[in-house]
Amino acid sequence: MTDNPSFVLRSIEDVAYEQRPIPEISDREVLVEVKKTGICGSDVHYYVHGRIGDFVVKDPMVLGHESSGIISKVGAKVKHVKVGDRVAIEPGSTCRVCDMCKSGRYNLCPDIVFAATPPYDGTLGRYYRVLGDLTYSLPENLTLEDGAMMEPLSVGVHSVATLGGFRHNQSVVVFGCGPVGLLCMAVAKALGAKRIIAVDIVPSRLEFAKSYAGSETYLPPAPEKDESKIDYSLRNAENMKKTLGIEDRGPNSINLVVEASGAEVSIQTGLYVVGTGGSYVQVGMGSPNVNINLTMVMTKELSFKGSFRYGPGDYPLAIALVAQGKIDLKPLVTHRYAFDEAIVAFKATRQGKSDDGKGVIKAIISGPDVSVTDA
Amino acid sequence: MTDNPSFVLRSIEDVAYEQRPIPEISDREVLVEVKKTGICGSDVHYYVHGRIGDFVVKDPMVLGHESSGIISKVGAKVKHVKVGDRVAIEPGSTCRVCDMCKSGRYNLCPDIVFAATPPYDGTLGRYYRVLGDLTYSLPENLTLEDGAMMEPLSVGVHSVATLGGFRHNQSVVVFGCGPVGLLCMAVAKALGAKRIIAVDIVPSRLEFAKSYAGSETYLPPAPEKDESKIDYSLRNAENMKKTLGIEDRGPNSINLVVEASGAEVSIQTGLYVVGTGGSYVQVGMGSPNVNINLTMVMTKELSFKGSFRYGPGDYPLAIALVAQGKIDLKPLVTHRYAFDEAIVAFKATRQGKSDDGKGVIKAIISGPDVSVTDA
Amino acid sequence: MTDNPSFVLRSIEDVAYEQRPIPEISDREVLVEVKKTGICGSDVHYYVHGRIGDFVVKDPMVLGHESSGIISKVGAKVKHVKVGDRVAIEPGSTCRVCDMCKSGRYNLCPDIVFAATPPYDGTLGRYYRVLGDLTYSLPENLTLEDGAMMEPLSVGVHSVATLGGFRHNQSVVVFGCGPVGLLCMAVAKALGAKRIIAVDIVPSRLEFAKSYAGSETYLPPAPEKDESKIDYSLRNAENMKKTLGIEDRGPNSINLVVEASGAEVSIQTGLYVVGTGGSYVQVGMGSPNVNINLTMVMTKELSFKGSFRYGPGDYPLAIALVAQGKIDLKPLVTHRYAFDEAIVAFKATRQGKSDDGKGVIKAIISGPDVSVTDA
Amino acid sequence: MTDNPSFVLRSIEDVAYEQRPIPEISDREVLVEVKKTGICGSDVHYYVHGRIGDFVVKDPMVLGHESSGIISKVGAKVKHVKVGDRVAIEPGSTCRVCDMCKSGRYNLCPDIVFAATPPYDGTLGRYYRVLGDLTYSLPENLTLEDGAMMEPLSVGVHSVATLGGFRHNQSVVVFGCGPVGLLCMAVAKALGAKRIIAVDIVPSRLEFAKSYAGSETYLPPAPEKDESKIDYSLRNAENMKKTLGIEDRGPNSINLVVEASGAEVSIQTGLYVVGTGGSYVQVGMGSPNVNINLTMVMTKELSFKGSFRYGPGDYPLAIALVAQGKIDLKPLVTHRYAFDEAIVAFKATRQGKSDDGKGVIKAIISGPDVSVTDA
Ligand SMILES: NC(=O)c1ccc[n+]([C@@H]2O[C@H](COP(=O)([O-])OP(=O)(O)OC[C@H]3O[C@@H](n4cnc5c(N)ncnc54)[C@H](O)[C@@H]3O)[C@@H](O)[C@H]2O)c1
Ligand SMILES: NC(=O)c1ccc[n+]([C@@H]2O[C@H](COP(=O)([O-])OP(=O)(O)OC[C@H]3O[C@@H](n4cnc5c(N)ncnc54)[C@H](O)[C@@H]3O)[C@@H](O)[C@H]2O)c1
Ligand SMILES: NC(=O)c1ccc[n+]([C@@H]2O[C@H](COP(=O)([O-])OP(=O)(O)OC[C@H]3O[C@@H](n4cnc5c(N)ncnc54)[C@H](O)[C@@H]3O)[C@@H](O)[C@H]2O)c1
Ligand SMILES: NC(=O)c1ccc[n+]([C@@H]2O[C@H](COP(=O)([O-])OP(=O)(O)OC[C@H]3O[C@@H](n4cnc5c(N)ncnc54)[C@H](O)[C@@H]3O)[C@@H](O)[C@H]2O)c1
Ligand SMILES: [Zn+2]
Ligand SMILES: [Zn+2]
Ligand SMILES: [Zn+2]
Ligand SMILES: [Zn+2]
Repeated sequence: MTDNPSFVLRSIEDVAYEQRPIPEISDREVLVEVKKTGICGSDVHYYVHGRIGDFVVKDPMVLGHESSGIISKVGAKVKHVKVGDRVAIEPGSTCRVCDMCKSGRYNLCPDIVFAATPPYDGTLGRYYRVLGDLTYSLPENLTLEDGAMMEPLSVGVHSVATLGGFRHNQSVVVFGCGPVGLLCMAVAKALGAKRIIAVDIVPSRLEFAKSYAGSETYLPPAPEKDESKIDYSLRNAENMKKTLGIEDRGPNSINLVVEASGAEVSIQTGLYVVGTGGSYVQVGMGSPNVNINLTMVMTKELSFKGSFRYGPGDYPLAIALVAQGKIDLKPLVTHRYAFDEAIVAFKATRQGKSDDGKGVIKAIISGPDVSVTDA
Repeated sequence: MTDNPSFVLRSIEDVAYEQRPIPEISDREVLVEVKKTGICGSDVHYYVHGRIGDFVVKDPMVLGHESSGIISKVGAKVKHVKVGDRVAIEPGSTCRVCDMCKSGRYNLCPDIVFAATPPYDGTLGRYYRVLGDLTYSLPENLTLEDGAMMEPLSVGVHSVATLGGFRHNQSVVVFGCGPVGLLCMAVAKALGAKRIIAVDIVPSRLEFAKSYAGSETYLPPAPEKDESKIDYSLRNAENMKKTLGIEDRGPNSINLVVEASGAEVSIQTGLYVVGTGGSYVQVGMGSPNVNINLTMVMTKELSFKGSFRYGPGDYPLAIALVAQGKIDLKPLVTHRYAFDEAIVAFKATRQGKSDDGKGVIKAIISGPDVSVTDA
Repeated sequence: MTDNPSFVLRSIEDVAYEQRPIPEISDREVLVEVKKTGICGSDVHYYVHGRIGDFVVKDPMVLGHESSGIISKVGAKVKHVKVGDRVAIEPGSTCRVCDMCKSGRYNLCPDIVFAATPPYDGTLGRYYRVLGDLTYSLPENLTLEDGAMMEPLSVGVHSVATLGGFRHNQSVVVFGCGPVGLLCMAVAKALGAKRIIAVDIVPSRLEFAKSYAGSETYLPPAPEKDESKIDYSLRNAENMKKTLGIEDRGPNSINLVVEASGAEVSIQTGLYVVGTGGSYVQVGMGSPNVNINLTMVMTKELSFKGSFRYGPGDYPLAIALVAQGKIDLKPLVTHRYAFDEAIVAFKATRQGKSDDGKGVIKAIISGPDVSVTDA
Repeated sequence: MTDNPSFVLRSIEDVAYEQRPIPEISDREVLVEVKKTGICGSDVHYYVHGRIGDFVVKDPMVLGHESSGIISKVGAKVKHVKVGDRVAIEPGSTCRVCDMCKSGRYNLCPDIVFAATPPYDGTLGRYYRVLGDLTYSLPENLTLEDGAMMEPLSVGVHSVATLGGFRHNQSVVVFGCGPVGLLCMAVAKALGAKRIIAVDIVPSRLEFAKSYAGSETYLPPAPEKDESKIDYSLRNAENMKKTLGIEDRGPNSINLVVEASGAEVSIQTGLYVVGTGGSYVQVGMGSPNVNINLTMVMTKELSFKGSFRYGPGDYPLAIALVAQGKIDLKPLVTHRYAFDEAIVAFKATRQGKSDDGKGVIKAIISGPDVSVTDA
């Protein structure tokens, strides 16, 4: 069969279905028949702007990188999966020979081939070829939609567990209640959080966080006229601490802040609310330059870390947390589209809601000839 | 004997010698006859501004916190020193019962009694009372001046070794060649640095760094007219990388940046030059708010840490590095003053040079009745 | 009031109630009116043998160290509790000035004053004096019996969480289903264990582990005649691996072994079953010398750690896990005695069952004039 | 050219030179013309016993795994070396896809292809094929003999630095003064050891350690008649502590023990002499089962680790320490042989001395047609 329809970004806001050759696989690779693909902010960003930072879409590129599917072919040296297996796909193939790859930080590999990051094609086609060890069998109680959600969930696992070192009975504040922030909360909850405080400027998103992750919620006040961002953030932080009974030390302090909105005022506020000796993890990407209060970092001797994608152990832990029932991904999938409606999915995600007004958390596009109602 | 002359800051730029009662000691304390005291930027800051941040000098306060001396009295429960011992004094007494104290981060104790931080008196008198375990016997080959230098050296140990996790054959860039930056370089050198790159805007300071710590040196270009700080810093970083052959990864990359100038452009430049997966430690205190490039922190997945004073093991390691001959502190002591010339020492440190034009790195004030030539 | 009846061990198997003076407290201490005390193997060991290793009961010593109570007096400098508060007591007062105390490993303090470890009196009296920071307020949903159980639970927290570094979705084998082993399982479960495998030679204890912690169970076969211990253990391990589907690597491997029986064959078996790159934590104390297979330690590059009591953060985490409902301590309290029945409690614990044949997991002795039915 | 003479072990004590095909390389591999090869105890063990544990020589196998050479061919994807480069060879090719490989512990890869470990051929031929990233360019001031020594030196780096976490100003005891023990001492010295204590039962080896690494030395007394090993070891340890002023805690305590003799009494003694809270690393392989004092592990809360080969960063650090002049490998090369004298090299290493009575530390065999005097 040579039928491999793919959803291709040709240039800004110009997408089309193209037939692509079915990839040949090497000994260490597998061919996956893609079944479910979530749409992520970065997919939309390429669609709208044709670039993210230095990554520019020059040639037509297949979109999509949050995918699950069924193993269609298996390379001779791949042993842990077989044809027919349902798998989640980790979409970054790394070189395996650089210092980063060998020392356990493969997400920092300079030669990573990441799906739907130019010049590399993504997963929104019938077939995707990938190194075998980047496919993870789905336990029986996980759906293919759950499988597609492993990518953003692994971002949460990496931020909260791996980098944040979050431990039982700690308290966390998560800024931003988009899919990434929500999944960070879900991970914190699964890891035994004492308190999870969700911050967003959209009340409905806060409501969602509350019902989804049992989070306490905080809606920042509006900035005042002529108030600088940093002044606003200090005021916001003081208000937040008072309202929520947050202290700088002891049982009422915040052990970890995860910033998943990318907003400068969130970053600033986060550094004010995190407790002495605490940790701050930046996941959200926003304006490249931000103004921060350095005195906070110094006198509280904070650890401030950037979080980039996911690394060793993150996918397996993500899968396990769902398999054990500690995290439920279903409420996050608010929209489902057939393969030939992909453009509608992109538009809804871009707008943050579908035409019927329903807010989008995560829109899933089914593979070619896959029913949207098959989860 | 009731003679305890002390050098007291009464209010901004108003200092005087006052007699203070000789402190009584408890079972766990010792009384030290102070012999040598280094002057630090913060002492000068209180002298000039009467405050540092929220710490305001309201009542007359004895200055000084970088001291060594001779044990004069020993509390009943103190066993490791005896009368007559030459000791370095760690100037922060902590509560021993809070979470920070008990978990090995006593520098973050909220109840720390730190010498010459209002409202607590400092060490510039004949006698200083301190918890016994905060006095460290000086090995025979260390002078009392060396002992006084243990305080800033411990800042370097804490930043480079304890927080920076600096390991043999790593490369470090240190911004700022004042005493703190120089001591950070000295520690990096003692720990087996592959490359030490010193950055300062004062050429003579760079010369000093080169001769003192064998550092490579980098003198940043002047900013251009109308150039924003962050644009300047990017340009500065690119120039620095090209000039010095610094790369983002591999053997020519920078494992650790230590920022010891407090200048916003140094902080910005530091985040640009540190390698992928690297560490950045902030020691310098400057303007409270700084503009940083967050994209660097994210895509290089940096660890950015504030460094505050020193904690468990820092003083002992500082002493050992000097005792083993790995660090020589003598070149740093550029000026020596008698007790009754304390004000001259403060003025020289404030101006950065003595009246004869000689640049000050560290000025040492001897205790009452101690000769300036006794090291 | 001067009434402080205490349960005193005079010499081997010779106990009596004696009046002791009510302790005076210092500024940093509190006086606790003891309400509930659990009996531990070491209490019984002193009762039966008059010594444990080098610790010999020379003078009459009050027994008991697993206690909770109500704050009766508060030293001037103690701020976090007040008269009337219900508290768990951490029974080891440390020096606060040695390297171990200051670097976050206070359980290794050479000058620790540990309740009911000669020559220091224990908690089985009406009053116990202790440093204030060693009393932890009990959340409302914890009983005083729960409070008494914090001591052994902290042993489990220290072994599994702090030293074992146990993380979500890992697998653990626990040897020994006494109170300590059971509490290790409870902690592993609370921390999100994937598999908990309980090993004991007493089937009823295995049954208990299964119902209490949801553990899988393994009953070792009897040794064969003339079989050496190490040969037996290898056979036992192979059988165990086959029966339970344990592999050396991957998802079916064991990440952590906790040995809480002290039996040599358990230690040996544990080193055989733990997976490559895994951790082994020794909690049980048995014969001082044991024969182990070093090849396992080498080729699997194991980390083998001794676990001694508990340290920073262990009591708070123990309390939190119970308060959050992640651990239920009630099933473990199988026997309850009034203060004047203390000797009966000791005898039942010694025999492993009460006269009615009921197996003892934990026997609790109430304080003087406290009803056994008040939990 | 098809000339690839190789030194082959056919069966126990039966070796011969055979011509082997010159290996073809893949894109990621290089072909190295082997120049210098050190002989290791394990090579000799295969020669004498035909096996090590479960690894049995069934088919003829080329011996040797401590090698350096010159790059002869470079696969298309290998970028960091070129034809003509002088390189050290890391002799274990790993799978790159298992959990161990991906999480930074590749030495534990189950599919490792290790030179001269059956069924895989070693390096004692004219050519050796290896994955490109396992060849490390030698700095100019390193000889090819130094390059061959990188293998055992990396064992020392892994044991002392990576697993032992050895830090400046710490004290170490190393049991066994063979090449591995000596290199562990060299690493400890390079990392800034305060004290290095060498233990061996052969006085000349102790002398060598003293002159080579500046070690203090300790010669254990002879065991007494009927004394059990563990009793002997306790006596030995007490004697050692007294003689050398070793204490259990504080500045005179031992932070790290490295056991590189494999002798049971060394292991036992090591656990007695290591300080409270200290680390013990086992490198030596001896009798599979050993009797240890568990009470020491418990009450001192030791960390006991097995050390197996080397992992990420170990080769680069080994090379750097020599390049910086911190370690001198030359004194260790006591014997040099031409390729066609390989059997003499094996015999001398087996006997521990050459026929002229000179003790062997390390014997190096040159490659075919390479002069023994070319270092
Ligand atoms: N680090 C990584 O590897 C990685 C991976 C995926 C996504 N991301 C980033 O994570 C971020 C979140 O992704 P997402 O898909 O959830 O995005 P999203 O846009 O759906 O969610 C962002 C949320 O932040 C909220 N927000 C905006 N301004 C705010 C403010 N001032 N205070 C509080 N909340 C505010 C928005 O209302 C929204 O709910 C994005 O910046 C994305 O680029 C990072
Ligand atoms: N974190 C702590 O616990 C701690 C302790 C002591 C001191 N400090 C701080 O460390 C810093 C250094 O202390 P010091 O005593 O060495 O001060 P210093 O003033 O003697 O030295 C600062 C150096 O930075 C240089 N500098 C200024 N602007 C620069 C720029 N743009 N680029 C490069 N170099 C620049 C100056 O020329 C000077 O040589 C101070 O900010 C001080 O407050 C922190
Ligand atoms: N490390 C510490 O700080 C610390 C603290 C408290 C207790 N402990 C020790 O922990 C151990 C357990 O304490 P406990 O109160 O639960 O004791 P316990 O005697 O109640 O329990 C021990 C269990 O081990 C079982 N057992 C005996 N031999 C066995 C074998 N060969 N294989 C499997 N199981 C076997 C017994 O049947 C029993 O159920 C004791 O050795 C105690 O000294 C250590
Ligand atoms: N863990 C690893 O990855 C690894 C790698 C290489 C070698 N090794 C092992 O390291 C050990 C040392 O290797 P080597 O090549 O230096 O061996 P070697 O035989 O040359 O040296 C061993 C030394 O131990 C001394 N010794 C013997 N009994 C002793 C005792 N009771 N007390 C003190 N010293 C005693 C011997 O006299 C000798 O000097 C061997 O067991 C080897 O198998 C391990
Ligand atoms: Zn890579
Ligand atoms: Zn404190
Ligand atoms: Zn102590
Ligand atoms: Zn592998």
